[in-house]
Amino acid sequence: MSKGRHEPADILSLVAEKANSLPLPERRAFLLRGLALAGAAAAGPVLAAVDPDDALPPNIPPWTRSLGRGVVTVPYGVPSEFEANVIRRTVPWLTANNISSISFTPLPELKGIITPNGLVFERYHAGVPDIDPDQHRLMIHGLVERPLVLTMNDLMRFPSVSVIRFIECPANGGMEWRGAQMEALQFTHGMLSCCEWTGVPLSVLLEEVGLKKGAAWVLAEGADGAAMTRSIPLEKALDDTLVVYAQNGEALRPEQGYPVRLLNPGWEGNTSVKWLRRLEIGDQPWYQREETSKYTDLMPDGRARKFSFTQETNSVITFPCPEKPLTQRGRYEIEGLAWSGRGRIRSVDISLDGGVNWRRAELKGLVLPKALTRFSFMWDWDGSPALLQSRAIDETGYVQPTLTQLRAVRGVESIYHKNSIHTWRLAETGEVTNVQID
Amino acid sequence: MSKGRHEPADILSLVAEKANSLPLPERRAFLLRGLALAGAAAAGPVLAAVDPDDALPPNIPPWTRSLGRGVVTVPYGVPSEFEANVIRRTVPWLTANNISSISFTPLPELKGIITPNGLVFERYHAGVPDIDPDQHRLMIHGLVERPLVLTMNDLMRFPSVSVIRFIECPANGGMEWRGAQMEALQFTHGMLSCCEWTGVPLSVLLEEVGLKKGAAWVLAEGADGAAMTRSIPLEKALDDTLVVYAQNGEALRPEQGYPVRLLNPGWEGNTSVKWLRRLEIGDQPWYQREETSKYTDLMPDGRARKFSFTQETNSVITFPCPEKPLTQRGRYEIEGLAWSGRGRIRSVDISLDGGVNWRRAELKGLVLPKALTRFSFMWDWDGSPALLQSRAIDETGYVQPTLTQLRAVRGVESIYHKNSIHTWRLAETGEVTNVQID
Repeated sequence: MSKGRHEPADILSLVAEKANSLPLPERRAFLLRGLALAGAAAAGPVLAAVDPDDALPPNIPPWTRSLGRGVVTVPYGVPSEFEANVIRRTVPWLTANNISSISFTPLPELKGIITPNGLVFERYHAGVPDIDPDQHRLMIHGLVERPLVLTMNDLMRFPSVSVIRFIECPANGGMEWRGAQMEALQFTHGMLSCCEWTGVPLSVLLEEVGLKKGAAWVLAEGADGAAMTRSIPLEKALDDTLVVYAQNGEALRPEQGYPVRLLNPGWEGNTSVKWLRRLEIGDQPWYQREETSKYTDLMPDGRARKFSFTQETNSVITFPCPEKPLTQRGRYEIEGLAWSGRGRIRSVDISLDGGVNWRRAELKGLVLPKALTRFSFMWDWDGSPALLQSRAIDETGYVQPTLTQLRAVRGVESIYHKNSIHTWRLAETGEVTNVQID
Repeated sequence: MSKGRHEPADILSLVAEKANSLPLPERRAFLLRGLALAGAAAAGPVLAAVDPDDALPPNIPPWTRSLGRGVVTVPYGVPSEFEANVIRRTVPWLTANNISSISFTPLPELKGIITPNGLVFERYHAGVPDIDPDQHRLMIHGLVERPLVLTMNDLMRFPSVSVIRFIECPANGGMEWRGAQMEALQFTHGMLSCCEWTGVPLSVLLEEVGLKKGAAWVLAEGADGAAMTRSIPLEKALDDTLVVYAQNGEALRPEQGYPVRLLNPGWEGNTSVKWLRRLEIGDQPWYQREETSKYTDLMPDGRARKFSFTQETNSVITFPCPEKPLTQRGRYEIEGLAWSGRGRIRSVDISLDGGVNWRRAELKGLVLPKALTRFSFMWDWDGSPALLQSRAIDETGYVQPTLTQLRAVRGVESIYHKNSIHTWRLAETGEVTNVQID
């Protein structure tokens, strides 16, 4: 880290200059009050010649000269007012209205792999319901021996598990199929979050109700106004599907399915049905609206892929990005996120020249299956333009494809499952733009 | 899960009864408006004979009959209104005022190992300052070759790491030294939280400034009104101490040191100095107020332990607890948290009879060093009274002591480091109380 920092002497001057220019009304008022009292008590101007600004060393900011707010002033904490720009955002032209729409997680601002609950992306089909957990019920019926209706208290009696897993909308990056459109990482990849989820394995609940012969699919239905439904193969349901009621330690947020949702790790986010009220066991899929007219992938020949559940291996560089340009030449940590619905990330490669040459990045911190994985690459930027790319490989050997490779198979008509290598163009100014190269 | 659930038929009747008793003004208003319009358009009472309540199946709650709120209605999300009781709480008699006080994490409500940022316990010495990150500086000086003043942008240029670690105030459980006082898990153990922290290893910053001969201690100083200070041995600073600016993916919360704090994993929380503005390198500790008159442990002979940094191995049963009694006989998952400032938890034992017999619990999910670790024990409760205890053992072989063992060494005068085995008394009613047994 020899580049990109000021000389200490320069910065100390800068600090002194800035600190001295700060408004210090509280400090002045406090000190002048003190002097007045001292003068009154001593009946003489003993300290009157002292400039109150000399009574404390210079450069001490107002927050060190005063007392702050007390405990439980904010019983449920909120971010600093200086972080007001770190919020979910929507793209108004993307959908007809905001009750059947999407908001995006501010990926440029996130660190590590956990997405705080307040910033988890939103996707609704009929808006967020405010469900009273005491009134809510989860019914499990169909091809089962002992159909069951569970209260939330009933559900929480079952043994639980906690896992850190990503959730991604399959439309993530969907605006990029035909050409680079979104000039912000928050919008190119922000339908993506990763939390610690707690709930009951669906396999445990299915053991409780007892599957009948022929059971092969599970219909999950939400309690929202859309009564959102998806058909889930029993193989997945018995593998790692969870019925979850908590995220990052606390109850699900309303927009994430409070009080209970399905979680199909690594699969299209919409299959993790929120506000879950019903699980029906059947012998075939139901072909509901959200798995026929929507959430299918239109191919060049006019046919559509259906039940394309798995979120394929993907990655993106999160620094630099359009929202976080480089500000000067020097040494930087290029950072990004990789994820795969098929398991763990094995490795990530970085290209600085649009895919001609590749170098191995470092995986940082926890590398968990079906979870965001952070990668890092130290780079001395000499001020030249560059085409920055990342390419993830998962533990099954799947290699994230190029856009050309993906289009060769899927065409450009689909909205979903665009997991191709993403390119940021870094200009000599340090600015970053979204470009597509073949 | 054969115990503790209703028969399906019973519950279905119950659901129907409850749903029918729900106020459905929205549904009625909507349907009646629809009928009126239909009638006007058709100029006849075509549908007038239809009872609007027959138009939809019974038992459908209002949130399924209406549209919810749209995306980014809440750009930074908040919990459901039905979770308003899940908040940090303080004990007013514990401290003279609330700017030098403590609030407690609601452990009974938490799942998994991550504490959401809004519920992380608070401990201040002069209240929470609102620091402008653009004005904030971190100075590193003393026995160094190249003293340095860093802006937040400078700091974020260094390569970062992310780790999940607990933070605990050494006073956690301090009211229990002489006898059981607090009738709530939130207050017996709630000065405890666990987050994913992101920042720069202090070792990287110390390499940047270059240590001079004789460097052996680091003084950390906060920018709050208390200018809180602690002396940290260089060995720790070069091992796993971090200078962190993010927790659970987002910027530190103001009450957690925004914009930057120290993190000494596994050590007394107060050493992880918040609102960090200065690191001074020296050849010996400074013996500041918060490591002499406070944060030392008064022994029976009148002497005091000093620099007792490590938070020793500890555990507590979080379900059942005073706030979460058992409600009926049957099968339950007894759950709890274990943690050690010395490394990973190796195992946790459970006693149902106040320490006479012990059985091994299951460790659930991630078992990370210096992080909360969740344990689980399936139990069929027959309605008899019980004395529930947990005993953690860490990877170094340290076994959580009994209260008698701890008192034999430390007496009852200390405020800090009470990590002895905790006992909950379960009554025949299912109620849980805090008791101490020898």
